[in-house]
Amino acid sequence: MGQTLTEKILDDHLVEGELETGEEIGIEIDQVLTQDTTGTMVWLQFEAMGLDEVQTEIAAQYCDHQTYQFDFKNTDDHRFLRSAAGTYGAHFSRPGNGICHNVHRENFAAPGKTLLGSDSHTPTPGGLGELAIGAGGIDVTVAMGGAPYYIEMPEVVEVRLEGELPEWATAKDVILEMLRRLSVKGGVGKILEYTGPGVETLSAPERMTITNMGTELGATSSLFPTDERTEEYLEKVGRGEEYVELTPDDDAEYDDEMVLDLSELEPLVAQPSMPDNVVPVSEVAGTDVSQVIVGSCTNGAYEDVLPAAKMLEGRTIDRKTEMIVAPGSKQASEMLAREGWVAEMMAAGVNFSEATCGACIGIGHVPASDSVSVRTFNRNFEGRSGIEDDEVFLCSPEVAAATALAGELVDPRDLADELGDLEDPGFELPEEYDGSKADLIGPDEAVDDELVKGPNIGDVPLKDPLESNLAGEALLKMEDNITTDHIIPATQDILMYRSNVPKLSEFTLSRVDDTFAERALEADGGFLVAGENYGQGSSREHAALCPMYLGVEGVLAQSFARIHKANLFNFGIVPLSIDDDGYESIEQGDEIEIVDDVREAVESGQEEFTVRVNGDEEVTAHLDASERERDILAAGGKLSWTKEQAPGGAATADD
Amino acid sequence: MGQTLTEKILDDHLVEGELETGEEIGIEIDQVLTQDTTGTMVWLQFEAMGLDEVQTEIAAQYCDHQTYQFDFKNTDDHRFLRSAAGTYGAHFSRPGNGICHNVHRENFAAPGKTLLGSDSHTPTPGGLGELAIGAGGIDVTVAMGGAPYYIEMPEVVEVRLEGELPEWATAKDVILEMLRRLSVKGGVGKILEYTGPGVETLSAPERMTITNMGTELGATSSLFPTDERTEEYLEKVGRGEEYVELTPDDDAEYDDEMVLDLSELEPLVAQPSMPDNVVPVSEVAGTDVSQVIVGSCTNGAYEDVLPAAKMLEGRTIDRKTEMIVAPGSKQASEMLAREGWVAEMMAAGVNFSEATCGACIGIGHVPASDSVSVRTFNRNFEGRSGIEDDEVFLCSPEVAAATALAGELVDPRDLADELGDLEDPGFELPEEYDGSKADLIGPDEAVDDELVKGPNIGDVPLKDPLESNLAGEALLKMEDNITTDHIIPATQDILMYRSNVPKLSEFTLSRVDDTFAERALEADGGFLVAGENYGQGSSREHAALCPMYLGVEGVLAQSFARIHKANLFNFGIVPLSIDDDGYESIEQGDEIEIVDDVREAVESGQEEFTVRVNGDEEVTAHLDASERERDILAAGGKLSWTKEQAPGGAATADD
Repeated sequence: MGQTLTEKILDDHLVEGELETGEEIGIEIDQVLTQDTTGTMVWLQFEAMGLDEVQTEIAAQYCDHQTYQFDFKNTDDHRFLRSAAGTYGAHFSRPGNGICHNVHRENFAAPGKTLLGSDSHTPTPGGLGELAIGAGGIDVTVAMGGAPYYIEMPEVVEVRLEGELPEWATAKDVILEMLRRLSVKGGVGKILEYTGPGVETLSAPERMTITNMGTELGATSSLFPTDERTEEYLEKVGRGEEYVELTPDDDAEYDDEMVLDLSELEPLVAQPSMPDNVVPVSEVAGTDVSQVIVGSCTNGAYEDVLPAAKMLEGRTIDRKTEMIVAPGSKQASEMLAREGWVAEMMAAGVNFSEATCGACIGIGHVPASDSVSVRTFNRNFEGRSGIEDDEVFLCSPEVAAATALAGELVDPRDLADELGDLEDPGFELPEEYDGSKADLIGPDEAVDDELVKGPNIGDVPLKDPLESNLAGEALLKMEDNITTDHIIPATQDILMYRSNVPKLSEFTLSRVDDTFAERALEADGGFLVAGENYGQGSSREHAALCPMYLGVEGVLAQSFARIHKANLFNFGIVPLSIDDDGYESIEQGDEIEIVDDVREAVESGQEEFTVRVNGDEEVTAHLDASERERDILAAGGKLSWTKEQAPGGAATADD
Repeated sequence: MGQTLTEKILDDHLVEGELETGEEIGIEIDQVLTQDTTGTMVWLQFEAMGLDEVQTEIAAQYCDHQTYQFDFKNTDDHRFLRSAAGTYGAHFSRPGNGICHNVHRENFAAPGKTLLGSDSHTPTPGGLGELAIGAGGIDVTVAMGGAPYYIEMPEVVEVRLEGELPEWATAKDVILEMLRRLSVKGGVGKILEYTGPGVETLSAPERMTITNMGTELGATSSLFPTDERTEEYLEKVGRGEEYVELTPDDDAEYDDEMVLDLSELEPLVAQPSMPDNVVPVSEVAGTDVSQVIVGSCTNGAYEDVLPAAKMLEGRTIDRKTEMIVAPGSKQASEMLAREGWVAEMMAAGVNFSEATCGACIGIGHVPASDSVSVRTFNRNFEGRSGIEDDEVFLCSPEVAAATALAGELVDPRDLADELGDLEDPGFELPEEYDGSKADLIGPDEAVDDELVKGPNIGDVPLKDPLESNLAGEALLKMEDNITTDHIIPATQDILMYRSNVPKLSEFTLSRVDDTFAERALEADGGFLVAGENYGQGSSREHAALCPMYLGVEGVLAQSFARIHKANLFNFGIVPLSIDDDGYESIEQGDEIEIVDDVREAVESGQEEFTVRVNGDEEVTAHLDASERERDILAAGGKLSWTKEQAPGGAATADD
């Protein structure tokens, strides 16, 4: 039986398991990327592992989210990240150099490689045949430490592209149509593999607009085969030698399939406030628009901005509409500037901004109250723009530029009819991507050789291996349905300490009992007791990291939320389930002792444990854990486990 | 006796008083400017006056301080300001179009005119022979209403320039040398008038760098004569017909004089954390620098950025130093982009930003902890950059560019010696300033014809004329030394309501008694009682406006701080002084009645008033007020007074 392209790349990188849908597999990671809001914790965890050097072929640290640097904490983060990249052998992209996905595809993305990134739009280079997956920070840390990435083998779905895009329809409309059909949940647990005769009609950057926004389908990743269009792009970015031809076998079997005829597409928009709320632009034409923004990792490349610039040349945007252009990379900005397009856009009334994620994550250019904003971004979730009850539409740069000229949502075909001299600018790659690399600092040119930590950057503690005797106080007894927001509140005044575990830990479970953190630190070891569904909510790793910092050794709960339980393993806290009677038998302040040799029991696969309460009463508890989870727990958590597995650090480092 | 240039312009605009140093004069205002952080209250007050149209020749509303629009409140402010400009006949400069002083000089500043602006660097066009003064918001409002601006006639000081600037010395070094000699208090109560043979060696933009930063000397304004260099500049900005030759008389008498020989200057820096802490760059050479920023209203023009761009061309800034360039206007950005300089700067490693005040006021690009930032700005007050204990140096664009290349503070002459191929780029005006005007919306092209108020923008109440009978409760009795921070706290969580008087008023005097605001509003009229020095601290107008909104009719205090007392007149609250016995006689909650016919007494110049407490005990109070202050009080405050004086609104509007 033939293989899909996904299976071929996974096979090449398979370290553990088999490529059966739903089975856990471990794969080797070639490249990792992190950005500035997730990167500080990644590097603090890497520091805690005690390794000398990153173990992946490429590690790249970008500064793109907080580049306006509102606050010394942003700037300190950037300086720390530069120092971490220099110290451990990663590439560092300076603030202002652009969005991680754009700079990565220009400089590092390569067919057949695997990429793990602590940002949800990491799948962007799928358009170049790289298998790229977004993950949590600790997964990226351990991958940098040389450990495999574990994931349940996703379904592989064939998306067969037929025909060719008509005038004024773009790659953005392809992915908007996918969202219209499949919804934002349609890709969950799946890798979307694009095939068919339509593929060769799309340039590599157009493919990357599609794979980038596959994230909005909930997909694990999206992937295109490689061909001469891929090679053409790699040559233009100066890396033609990295081209590899990659295609699925003719007799590959997919878990599911669908067909999309490009020739049937027209200019589309996602209406407020969900990326799958898609209609033809013509259906909402005439809506007054206060703000238009072109940019983001979806549509911020040179070749994405160029059509908008051509449409604006010699024209003036509507005076009641503000238009901001923030390219995805400084290379794009520089090329647009060098060819005169930046001047033309400014002359038309564009506010030309830094290369940054910026407005896409609500940082800057927040819309006015009761106003409509039209953006070339990938998400329009309610409130994401920085104001509640926002009305954000998503579309292509062509629709955005037409809208800025008209002052209202308009199908560019209708505007072209009206103006008479407006033509489809087409989609065109430059002769070569010749922007400067002044802001990308390679490991050989590192500025720093030790970590530089501002006052808001703390250390991450590493847990010792699991002990044989576990005993301590029941520090807190909680009800059912305790959320990760109860464990670590996500309000801005608290999350500003996300890089400072000692400080952040002071808020642990403060919404349940504000004396907890202090009592836990003093007790130097102990247990949490909870009802059903403990740890529901977000995937926030701090909800396990902070209790670990405070000395919590185990959680006795009637049941656990799935992701939080995984995080407890990752940070070396033993999650034991107890029944109703067990829960009733334990009161806050009781002395808890696990009778078994815990270390031995965890490693040997033992499921039933005996918990002694106040020296006499005995309660039965269960540990439900895979072999790998037991290994991680025994090692003291994922970082300690990765450190154990690492091939001796720098001496054998693979860079 | 001959006249100084200052006297000539003042004479031309004199409405009241005589040009004797220290005497109050009233002058006609030709032009006003406001920016986005002060502008909302200016326009709300203008709305409250009920006039149909601005009465000055030019009124211009700029959006420059909060252009990153972090928050819907910033964006709502900009939209409100656009609607106010459109409704009342002002020019509107869109966010992103640049800093008020830069856009104003490009478009409106003209020799012999008077300009009043609600921004401290309003004196910038003094370099074009315009007499320009920074003032409080209400002064700008009343000037827009057609009323004169009142000021004590300043001393006029002659600054005689000899010689010519040597290589690598710039206009920035002229004003830094002035600060070194005179200190930040050296210009208080003075207008600095530049004369002598050195004047003609400086182009108009160089003169404007000097007049702009005269504000740091504490000067009321700074002024240059006009000549062919002025005419040359006006022609290049397309307004040659506005040129007027203006010079002091040969036998003009100045209050004081000094001489500055340009040929003796060298590259200077102001060290942390005061603009007058000036030394030659060479004295601090070698200091490691993390951040360099070129821009601001002092050194953000096309011709200011150009020398830095030339120095960076073909070179790369030091990899441990971040460099940001934020031009002063979009016209400057566009011209630099069109000529290829933006691309060259980006290639060298510059993060090219929007045309904004930005980092100069701590909005964006906050330095990292314990790091040095070198900026071409005008102020380096401690903490102004957005972080406490900052280390900000001020210098010319040439010194900034040299520093970015070296990664440490360096005298550009030494860097030129070291590099061998670095020459003084000189100071050069363009053939013409040919940037687009797409972002400057004239009154004839107004987008809005009614005010658009977001939810955080309230109304400003206008007080009725003073009544004859004043009586009410002593709502609050306070100690000595109540500050304006007690009256309206200046913390960010409260000042965010600065455009929303009803909401802001809820915090009035909350630091003394948090029940006050509610009680005052319910009482519908009443008095404040205070000890010595009531209202010390800032010039914050809200400290009078909010009590007025809550219904406070008068303040009985043992003494008043000078500026706050002026604000009480401006908002129609009667400030009466009482002695020790009087203070002791009144308790909070007492019924207060002023026995006299208050309206009549105020208008007639009566100084002594009888205050009846709880219907029997009598206390003597004094009103110390000029004739104009009495007129303002009788009218119900400055806005009501201006409204009374206005020539019937739109029917006779002069635009």
